[in-house]
Amino acid sequence: MSTVAVMGSGSWGTAMALTLSDNDHRVTIRARRAEVCDKINNDHRNPDYFTDLELPPSLRAERDPQIAMQDAEFVVLAVPSQSLRETLSQWQISDQAVIVSLAKGIELGSGLRMSQVIMEVTGAGPERIAVLTGPNLSHEIARRQPAAAVVASVREETAIAVQQLFHTATFRPYTNTDVIGCELGGATKNVIALAVGMAAGMGYGANATASLITRGLAEIIRLGEAMGADPHTFSGLAGIGDLVATCSSPLSRNRTFGEELGRGRTVAEIAGSTRQVAEGVKSCFSIKALAEKHHVEMPITYAVCAVIEGSLDPRSLVQALLARAPKPERY
Amino acid sequence: MSTVAVMGSGSWGTAMALTLSDNDHRVTIRARRAEVCDKINNDHRNPDYFTDLELPPSLRAERDPQIAMQDAEFVVLAVPSQSLRETLSQWQISDQAVIVSLAKGIELGSGLRMSQVIMEVTGAGPERIAVLTGPNLSHEIARRQPAAAVVASVREETAIAVQQLFHTATFRPYTNTDVIGCELGGATKNVIALAVGMAAGMGYGANATASLITRGLAEIIRLGEAMGADPHTFSGLAGIGDLVATCSSPLSRNRTFGEELGRGRTVAEIAGSTRQVAEGVKSCFSIKALAEKHHVEMPITYAVCAVIEGSLDPRSLVQALLARAPKPERY
Repeated sequence: MSTVAVMGSGSWGTAMALTLSDNDHRVTIRARRAEVCDKINNDHRNPDYFTDLELPPSLRAERDPQIAMQDAEFVVLAVPSQSLRETLSQWQISDQAVIVSLAKGIELGSGLRMSQVIMEVTGAGPERIAVLTGPNLSHEIARRQPAAAVVASVREETAIAVQQLFHTATFRPYTNTDVIGCELGGATKNVIALAVGMAAGMGYGANATASLITRGLAEIIRLGEAMGADPHTFSGLAGIGDLVATCSSPLSRNRTFGEELGRGRTVAEIAGSTRQVAEGVKSCFSIKALAEKHHVEMPITYAVCAVIEGSLDPRSLVQALLARAPKPERY
Repeated sequence: MSTVAVMGSGSWGTAMALTLSDNDHRVTIRARRAEVCDKINNDHRNPDYFTDLELPPSLRAERDPQIAMQDAEFVVLAVPSQSLRETLSQWQISDQAVIVSLAKGIELGSGLRMSQVIMEVTGAGPERIAVLTGPNLSHEIARRQPAAAVVASVREETAIAVQQLFHTATFRPYTNTDVIGCELGGATKNVIALAVGMAAGMGYGANATASLITRGLAEIIRLGEAMGADPHTFSGLAGIGDLVATCSSPLSRNRTFGEELGRGRTVAEIAGSTRQVAEGVKSCFSIKALAEKHHVEMPITYAVCAVIEGSLDPRSLVQALLARAPKPERY
């Protein structure tokens, strides 16, 4: 039994706090708003997510980040990727704690992966950091639907410790030491899911979306190889697994956002009507910047950026991607 | 403009005859039953498939296979994989014609790929044979939804000729010379789709099905490498593309068959209520035999065979595949 702080009470933080509580750990979830803490502590519900699910009484919520992290052997960061740096700069994480990153994204401006941001801000070495990723829609995890995941750390012992921390009867993490590949898989798939959502929103079927997923995987692998990832990672749960889950589930925020774009709504309209903006809407620009830096062709990512900026119609995106000149298939 | 015989009036033969007609070729479709020929020739409908779609008047149906193939520069074989040998043995295909194989399967008993069966029975050399495969649900193609495909031949000129034959505004074939990989991808994905369907039929979500697809791809790649395929083929449209389309579409026969199994119906019950038995129900045993011959681990394929034989409950299949001991992710 370990002491764990889950820093963030969004859908993913809540789902992972539930999984950790199922494993009988001492779990504190950090929520920014007092009313969320009160509801979790007194009514055992998160008022914002999975409102039909009762949380275990052992799960405590805490507003003060330092109190939430007190004595924590594991600090789980369930913070949106683009605010991770600012948030972390306000916290003091014990240099004994293992830090687990749940955020999937690439920082705008710096082009850094989340584990790199964590190292820069906290001064933690890579051997103390693990990344949890994979085909993991939070709604399904919270409802104890079976899922496999990947825990990546450059230090195998750290990966194994975090694997054991999260491993329940329904949630099964595998270990991997390719942190670069695992983080890139998690960040890039949101952009491809936006494109797949656009195609689905325009009424295209499984043939078109499967082709977009296939071409999307190809550009992810190209970027990964240029950045030093192990290409095999992308054939696994953190690559194709996460990509397929995100692109095929109607519960996926990025796919849903893309569908709305495909139906003709604007980014501003969709963002105004949802609580959380889809991660890929921001990450697409940082991934495009990485592609430019590493001289990698990523036509789907570029097209998604153009749609988000408003300079390309989603209809043109799908047609352009599916209607290029016939040629041999090369990857 | 070429003269083309499409040998078979099932859903896939009909969809491809439509695509070829869209390209203004002289197309004859061969149907076994006289009433189907009459309906196609007089009412311009296939009475069995896509009954809401009008066929072009230029598309002629013919019952006699030799008349259907007369003067054909391309003979397109739209015959179920397990009856291809017997059917072919009754036909005389001109040794001038290019033969295009649409069947996705491995022959029971011999363990041969479809292009190998064609070579054995017709005596045609591999340079005269092309395989058409990829993420291509026939219902979507018939309705001119956009789709990409792969035309594979050991002779690149043959692949290019067939690519040009089929290439329309909405149907876009790429060429590949890895016939082994393309045929294996098409045959094995039906078995994985059965497993994914079982999981979906039992109520499992996108996390579980994406994990099954990921592990399924891993065992397909293992078999392909052992049999001399180019592993890159499986990252493309004929591999992951076809796998994802088949596993994610409610229109996929194999996925639907698996769903019924997952809901507790037996193979006999489901087969009794559908016109065509899902290809994977037969192919799973020939793929298992290939795995044994090449000493490759294919746990999903083995489990699907056990469910089809009635010796394993679908519930146990999904649990066994998702609940193995935690370990590093290796492919």
